[in-house]
Parts: sequence; C-alpha cells; structure tokens
Amino acid sequence: MCGIVGYIGKEQAASILLDGLSKLEYRGYDSAGMAVYNGEDIEVVKSKGRLKVLSELTHDGATMPGTLGIGHTRWATHGEPSDVNAHPHCNKDESIVVVHNGIIENYLKLKRKLEDKGYKFLSDTDTEVIAHLLDYYYTGNPLQAVTKVMHRMEGSYALGIIFKDHPDELYAVRKDSPLIVGHTKSGSIIASDVPAVLKYTRDVFFIENEEIVRMTDQTMEFFTVDEEPLEKKSTRIEWDVNAAEKGGYEHFMLKEMYEQPKAITDTFSPRIKEGKIVIDELNMSDEEIKAIKKIMIVACGSAYHTGVTSKYILEGLARIPVEVDLASEFRYRDPLLEEGTLVIIVSQSGETADSLAALREAKARGAKVLGIVNVVGSSIAREADNVMYTWAGPEIAVATTKAYTAQLIAEYLLAMKFAYVRGKLNDAELAALIDDMRKLPAQVEMLLNNKQKIQKFANRYLAAKDIFFIGRGIDYAISLEGSLKLKEISYIHSEAYAAGELKHGTISLIEEGTLVAAVLTQEELYKKMISNMVEVKTRGAFVLAVTNTENTEVEKAADYVIYIPKTNKYFTNSLAIIPLQLFGYYVSIGRGCDVDKPRNLAKSVTVE
Amino acid sequence: MCGIVGYIGKEQAASILLDGLSKLEYRGYDSAGMAVYNGEDIEVVKSKGRLKVLSELTHDGATMPGTLGIGHTRWATHGEPSDVNAHPHCNKDESIVVVHNGIIENYLKLKRKLEDKGYKFLSDTDTEVIAHLLDYYYTGNPLQAVTKVMHRMEGSYALGIIFKDHPDELYAVRKDSPLIVGHTKSGSIIASDVPAVLKYTRDVFFIENEEIVRMTDQTMEFFTVDEEPLEKKSTRIEWDVNAAEKGGYEHFMLKEMYEQPKAITDTFSPRIKEGKIVIDELNMSDEEIKAIKKIMIVACGSAYHTGVTSKYILEGLARIPVEVDLASEFRYRDPLLEEGTLVIIVSQSGETADSLAALREAKARGAKVLGIVNVVGSSIAREADNVMYTWAGPEIAVATTKAYTAQLIAEYLLAMKFAYVRGKLNDAELAALIDDMRKLPAQVEMLLNNKQKIQKFANRYLAAKDIFFIGRGIDYAISLEGSLKLKEISYIHSEAYAAGELKHGTISLIEEGTLVAAVLTQEELYKKMISNMVEVKTRGAFVLAVTNTENTEVEKAADYVIYIPKTNKYFTNSLAIIPLQLFGYYVSIGRGCDVDKPRNLAKSVTVE
Repeated sequence: MCGIVGYIGKEQAASILLDGLSKLEYRGYDSAGMAVYNGEDIEVVKSKGRLKVLSELTHDGATMPGTLGIGHTRWATHGEPSDVNAHPHCNKDESIVVVHNGIIENYLKLKRKLEDKGYKFLSDTDTEVIAHLLDYYYTGNPLQAVTKVMHRMEGSYALGIIFKDHPDELYAVRKDSPLIVGHTKSGSIIASDVPAVLKYTRDVFFIENEEIVRMTDQTMEFFTVDEEPLEKKSTRIEWDVNAAEKGGYEHFMLKEMYEQPKAITDTFSPRIKEGKIVIDELNMSDEEIKAIKKIMIVACGSAYHTGVTSKYILEGLARIPVEVDLASEFRYRDPLLEEGTLVIIVSQSGETADSLAALREAKARGAKVLGIVNVVGSSIAREADNVMYTWAGPEIAVATTKAYTAQLIAEYLLAMKFAYVRGKLNDAELAALIDDMRKLPAQVEMLLNNKQKIQKFANRYLAAKDIFFIGRGIDYAISLEGSLKLKEISYIHSEAYAAGELKHGTISLIEEGTLVAAVLTQEELYKKMISNMVEVKTRGAFVLAVTNTENTEVEKAADYVIYIPKTNKYFTNSLAIIPLQLFGYYVSIGRGCDVDKPRNLAKSVTVE
Repeated sequence: MCGIVGYIGKEQAASILLDGLSKLEYRGYDSAGMAVYNGEDIEVVKSKGRLKVLSELTHDGATMPGTLGIGHTRWATHGEPSDVNAHPHCNKDESIVVVHNGIIENYLKLKRKLEDKGYKFLSDTDTEVIAHLLDYYYTGNPLQAVTKVMHRMEGSYALGIIFKDHPDELYAVRKDSPLIVGHTKSGSIIASDVPAVLKYTRDVFFIENEEIVRMTDQTMEFFTVDEEPLEKKSTRIEWDVNAAEKGGYEHFMLKEMYEQPKAITDTFSPRIKEGKIVIDELNMSDEEIKAIKKIMIVACGSAYHTGVTSKYILEGLARIPVEVDLASEFRYRDPLLEEGTLVIIVSQSGETADSLAALREAKARGAKVLGIVNVVGSSIAREADNVMYTWAGPEIAVATTKAYTAQLIAEYLLAMKFAYVRGKLNDAELAALIDDMRKLPAQVEMLLNNKQKIQKFANRYLAAKDIFFIGRGIDYAISLEGSLKLKEISYIHSEAYAAGELKHGTISLIEEGTLVAAVLTQEELYKKMISNMVEVKTRGAFVLAVTNTENTEVEKAADYVIYIPKTNKYFTNSLAIIPLQLFGYYVSIGRGCDVDKPRNLAKSVTVE
C-alpha cells in the first residue's frame, strides 16, 4: 500500500504534489519522493522518512520548478525503506520515470530477463522493473510501451508515468490498486485516493482495471489495454475532506476494521501454494523446524495477546511447548533460553522499544529470532534473523484492529506449517484448515456488516463503570484483546479474566447490572463457561455471550447473544474479536471519546 | 493450632464443651472430639469433620452424661484428619485421656521408646505419645506424672487431662501454646482462648509457660513444674464476645495479618537445620533434584501470585525454567509435560477444585507432583506425590494474608534447596539468604506496627473508582497480590500491570487524581520504574511508591512513599505486601465493607 499523485497543467507541480501526498500519508510514510520535468530534464528528489523530510529537501517544492510531475509516499513491501528504494524509479538515462502502488508478483523473473539484456538495477524494489521494462519496449510511442508492459506484468499496480520525450503528457494506468483522475482549474491530476484531489476538484473519474489514461493540461483520454479509446463518466464527490481521508468512514479505526478481510487475504494468500504452506521468509529447513524444542513469543499489548492465542494453537497443533512473555518483562528477566528455543517477536510497527530490546536480549543469548512485523524494513524486521511480514498495510488508528488480525493469520500459518512438517497434521487436516482459513475474510465481512446491532447494544453501556470479559483457553486470549480494545478507547475500566479464576477474588466486584462479556467458542468448554456465566448472573451481572452459531444452549445463561459463524476451533479468535472491536468502537464514540487518538496513548511505543 | 476446652463442675459437661468448642472453631475444624467421665468410665466420642458432626453424633451432647470432660477441635499437623487421629487420645485402658494443642517435637523418639516397652499406638499423632507417657509415669499421683512427662517433652503444648482414678479433678498445663482457666458459677473451665469461656466468666487466669493447674468443681490450684504451689491473679476480660473470638482484633483479617511473623517462623524454622535447608517431606534425592528439567507451578488466586513470584526466584537462584499457570486453564489446556517436569500445586485449603483437578491431570500425564498446602490431610495433600506444608494455621478471613505469606516462605526454601543442591548457591550465599530469612518475622512486625500511617493514607481513597498497581519482575508479582487484596474486599476496581505494559493501552484510563501504586524493590529496575511513574504522574496520577529504605531517589517521582526494610532481593515480596494488605484492609473497613466475608466470595473454592 502506497500513495501516488501526478499533475500536469499551468501551475507549479511540486507544491500540488506535496499537498496531495500529505493527504495520502495514511497510505504509507516510510519514504517519499517526487519527479518533475523542469523544461529540460526530469529531476528526481526522494528520501527515506516522513513526507516532511521531502518538503524540507525541496523547500516545500520551491526548488523544483516545472508543471509536470509525479509523487509517491511509500509503505515498503520489496526492499526496506531507504533513499534508493523510495519512488520515483527511472530507466538508466532518467528519460522514463514511474511511481507505483501495488506489487509486481513476477518482478524477479522480469528482472533476470532485463539483467540478461544488460539493464542495471539500483534498488531492491519491484517497481524499478517497470521503469526498465518501459525503456525496453519504448520506441517513441508511450501508449504502446505502456500496454506492452501491462501484458508482461503480473500482480497489482497503479502507475503514474512521465516520458521526457513527451513533456506535455502524463500517463496513468491501474490494475487492482486504486486510481482516480480529474480536471482542475489549471490542469489534470491523478491520485490513489479522493482526499488528494478534493482541494482541486470534486468531479473525478474512477479508473477501472487495465484502463489507461493519457492527460495533457487540458485533455484526458482513456484507453483499453488494446489501445482502443474509451468513454468514461465522472463522479461527483460529496464527502468532506476529513471523511475523504478515511475513505468515507467516520474514523480510521472503523476503516481499518473494514480492511480486515483484505488484511487476512493479503497475509495468507501468498503463503498458500498448491495446498501447502510456503513461508519462504522463514528460512528454516524442515530439519530445523523439527529441531525446535520450545517457542518463546515475546510482545507487548495486542501483539502479546496474539501470542497468548498462539500458545494454544502451537501447542495444540504442533505440540511444541510455548511460553509467552511481555517484552518489558522478558528483557529484564535474565531469561533462560535453552538450546533449541525459537524466539518470536511480534510487533505492528517493528519499532516497539521493549520488543526490540527483547529481540536483542534473545539474540545476545544465542537464540534464533523470528520477527512477525507489519512495517517493512523496521528495526525489528532488520535485526531479526528472519522476518515474516503481515500484509495489513499502514494502520493509523492507535487501537490496532487489522494489524492484530493479520498477526493472528501469520501465527496460524506458522503453527500449521510447523505441525505439518513435524508430522502432527496430515494432508487432509491441513487442507481442511486451509479451507477454513479461506472462508475467514467473508465471515469477517459478514460480522462487520452486523454493526448496527452491536452499536445498539453498545449504546446501553455508555455509562458503565466496570466491564468484565471472561473466557477459557483461546477464549481467554480473545477476552484479553476485547477488554483492551474497549478500555483503551472508551476509558471504561474493563478487565479480562480466565473464567475459572474470577471467583478467586474479582467476582466480588460484580454488582447488579455489571456487564460481563463471556466468550465461548471452544466446544469442549461450553459447559464450564456456562457455569461461570451462571455464577456472575446470579450475582446480578448482565451477561453478553459471544459464541458459535450452533451453541443456542447458551441462551439459557446469557442475556444477550452474538453468534459467530463456524470455523476451525483454532481460528475463532479471528471471528469473535470482530464484534468486540465494534463494541469498543461504538462505546467510545457514544461517549464522545477521540477514537483514533485516545488520550495518553501513542501509536507505536518507541520508549520503554 | 487447635482448640482445647475442659470443664469440671455441677452441670452436664458435654454441652458446655460443645459450646466452648464452637467459639474455638477458628483455631481448627478438621475434626473434633470429647471425653466425658460418666461416673464409671471415660467415654470418648470423636470424628473427622466440622464440629457439627460431633454435635450430631452426641445429640448436642445429650448422649454423654457426666460433669467432668475435655474437648478438642483439630487443625491437623501430625497425621491427616481422620476419626482415629482426632483428639482426645487415651492410654490403653482409657483411664488417662488427653487433649492437646501444639507440637511435640521429639515425639518420634518418645514413641520408639514407648513401643520398645510394649505400648501400642493407634494414631499417627504426636499427642498419643503424651497419653502413653502419662500412663508410663503414672503411679497414682497425677501431678507427679504430669511433671515427669513435662520434663520429657520438647516442643509446645497446652493440655487438658483427665485421670479416671481422680474423677473429681481436671488437670491442665501449658508451654508455648495458649491456655486460660476460670471459675464459672457451677464449676471450673479451661480453654485455649477467651471466647470459649466468656459466656461463663469474665475473670480468667492466664496460665504461663510450664505452669500446671489442678481443678475441682470449686477449687483451683497452680503449680510449677517442680510441683511447688503458685499464687496467681485473675484478669478481668472487658472484650465483647465477638472481639474475643478474634483475639481482640476487629477482624479475622487483621488478626491473621498479625499472625504473619509467626506463620513465617513456623514455616521456615523446622526446615533449617545446621545451616542447611532440610525438607524431609520433599522425598527427593539430590540426584532427583538435579534431574529436574522444568518446574510448572499451578494454582489459583493468591496462590497463583506466589507462583509468579517463584518463577523469578527459581529461575534466578536455581536456573530451572519455570512456567506458571492458572489451574482452571492448565486442566483444560492439554498441557505438554515434558520428561523431567516437576509440577507444584499451591493451595491454602488443599481443596481448591481447579487445583485438585490440575493435580490429577498432571499425575495422569506422568508428572511428579509436589503440593504446597496449608491444611494437613486435605485432598491435594493426600493426592500429591509429596507435600510440603505451610504452617500458617487456620485462616478464617476470605482474603488470604498469612497463608499467602507462608506459601512464599515455602517456595523460597524450595528455591534455595534446589539452587544449593544444583551447585548454583555456595555455602556463604546460602547462609546469607538464611540470615535474611530469619530477619523477616521482625521486619514484618515492624511494618505491621506502621498501620496507623497506612490507615490515614487509605482513608483518602475510600471513594476511588479505579486504582492501578504497577511493578516489574518480582514487583509485578507483588502488584498482582496487592491489587487482588484491595479489590476483593473493597470492591474498588483495581488492576495490576507489568509497569512496562501500561502504556500499551491501559494508561488511557489514568485521570487526574487516579491512584497508581508503584512497587520498586528491585534495585536494577529502579530507573525503569521511575520512568513509568513519571509517565503516569504527568497524566495526572497520584503515585504511591513502596520501595526499599535506601531508595530515597524515588521521592522525586512519587507523591507518597512507604519504605520497607532491606532484605534479599528475592524476599522483598514478604515485606512489600504488608503495607498493601493493610491498605486493602483499611480501604475496605473505611467503606463499610464486610472485610472478613466479602460479597460473592467463599473461603475455599471447591467448585470449578
């Protein structure tokens, strides 16, 4: 996920590009760059870091004269964030320049072919392939070169392209990555998303898959991949600017919750090949996987909760003993890391200070460290022996949703892989798990679409003082995350308890009307959970149950029931957490809290 | 700890004995018994179980005629609770009958001697030795026999004795166990404690060490161990009956907090012999201790918190990897118990349902199980492979204090023993630890005596909505227990957090004036903790610090500081918990809660 912009017209391009990029920073922020045709050459400026570094480098664009340009804000996928990996990318003589959002899946094959033909590559990106491939096919007709390249590329892309030979034209094209174009008073503009253009126009064309646009400062022509002209109608955008940045959602958190089906798909689909789990980045041979004696999962916050979940799954599926530890505790614990221990560090940002310190501690003690990280090229990704990325895209809301969800998927895949290699899972069992995993995105979507019901329920609890979450086994892990979601954004003191532990003290806090959310997704524990629900109900609690569709039995002990669709018992966290995220979200907005930026909290905790 | 009573006079003895015993049930309740001279023989009725079993057996005493008798309510030490181990105990022809509170330390030696002389023993108790020894020395003069026996016994005792040959006399004697006597309107009465006699008299004689009393229905004579007569003055008891049962304390919880120095001493002193840790009950050879690969501590509630503490100590001192699990989770986890795992189950009552089920689960999987239990002969004590008792005595208040404290000591001893045997601790280090352990009782006493200061501070927080406890490492374990103490009896929602984890969500709950109790007893973590304190302080929290005397640095970051005396870094829990117990206690009484019996809670959780 990255953000691209482009402009051709009568005004200075650079300042319009910078302004547009500033509205797209939610799509990536590890590096940024611009290319502007200055009347003679195409000048490229790019830099690692936030957009403001680029603004400073160019004095807010003032140092880059010219009225044709493209810009990019990056969320790294191939190649870590660095000046050289930042976009735009060019051919050798910098006569063709490109910005790209998406992933070119066959880039390695194309790269090898181009290298054979003498092309030299400067970066580790997939995007540089596009620039050289355009060069390879370019014979004076930009449209032809673009369509030829489109025929060769597999994957997803939205591109902005400048040809130095055609300084009055700006090209754009897309497949599976978003792209819009529009006329401004002074020219034409392209962007990945509506907010970047709203200041200049409210009438935009949504480019469809495999459509090409050729723009001048006054005209705009659309073509198919066969170079046939197309007629397109513009759409009037009625959103305000704020809403636009959130893609029409009221808050980033809600938007990111809705991006979960995609985050799940993006995280698992590249790793399932011909019915097997393939995690190339793992860099572990089957022998090494078989030699694992113990796994230690170390993390903070929600990432820690995925670890609590994974302990059940890794132990249950792969029969490897797992210990889960808070990073802030692990690093000062003088931990005993026996021979054969694999340490897994889980972090969205890859910059969590305690997790990074834990990683270093583990490495210093000789353990092999695997990072599960969302931000490519982050410190944890760089310092871990191996890294498995979650493909959730940038997460803006402080309260994590889609990154958490993607972490779970990564950890499921790991457990399935380990179990299969160690002979604890046969082909049929693996196939059944993969089948269930493939169903998760649609199931999550279905649960998200149930949001009105949750909102209505949440509105009853806006004045709650204390809320408890209880569960056993994996359901305890779900409770931990459900409770954290609620408390961090609503400031209601909620607490999660292993259901059997409540009566050892905390049950004395239950009063008439106290909400207790009970999670029951593990069939073999239904009865035990129902006993615990009755215990709190008889003491006055109002019991909300989150359970599997078939468990209607629970209605006897619950005051309100939310059903989740059937999935494998190890995957239930991915579904049960959805209504709990929505509950936290709606309680928070109902109380008038700042959902996306709760008080006292930072998105990634880079201090101890 | 047991309760004894005795009566000689004009009224029927049995009902007076039962009434007295009912006031002493706080001293023990695993079995009870009475002996009454019926004009011809001494009739003995005794039974395992609560006192009401004895009442039912005797139709509230109606089936036992006679005006001379002794009674007993037992808290097992030697020999599990059973009909045969219940008191009273007799010589062979039941002509000498005795009830006993205390422990005869040299009973094994005496028993062997008596067996050599042909005496047959029915029970496993130390008390039966006294009956046979009296028989051995008795030549018609009870006083003489008693003094001879006193010369032979080592240990502690309060005794009530009846000689069938002298049916007009009741004998009593004590050393290091409490005993009082008094005149009633109809006769003379003895008891372990004031509440048992208050209904009959408010003027009592406190028997001093090694004093003997000979009573008839009208007279009362005191003797030294050399049979010299003594003059004694009676004391007027002004307490009301309720207060009396609590030994003058307002609540059992406060009384039990004050019994902690004794619980510590009683738990460690029998296990330190000639500068070494000797835990006979462990039944593990040095080779077996060296072969331990992993320790799994499984428990519920406060006992679980001792496990969290012990993980740090066992790993730190003995370098054995430790996993701590909630019993309710462990039993359904399908746990992986590798070869060489020692499972330790910690429980005050020894009847905690989840802990018992966890024990059975562990045994079924072939693991060796050690119980750390307070109630002798309880289910966990019986079913564990080996059992190490805590000698805290009966705990009545639902919120545990002295049993928790005694569990900690038992676990310290275990860690020291394992570390020493495994060569991780040399003689000098062990000696230093033992030295520090010996100082703990006096240090706890000092902290208890500081209670007014804590009460004053607690009174400020009677209306608090939320309170947080933070700490790192062992201080996190202390925080868990401090938080539970507060919430279970005051119904204020408190929560403990690993200090480094707070900022991953929960810190958003901190408002102006929220109390955050920070525990800092680990020198190497002072600085990190102070950072965390500053984090919450800048967000408005009022910070209470509990720290070591020398750490005055903390005053910069704390609003209020409670200092604890210096001890070994592994023992700080035993000291730091005292002010936190007092804080919970005083907040609870300040809010008018039922401290000893908080709503919704039971003393021992014998359901899942």
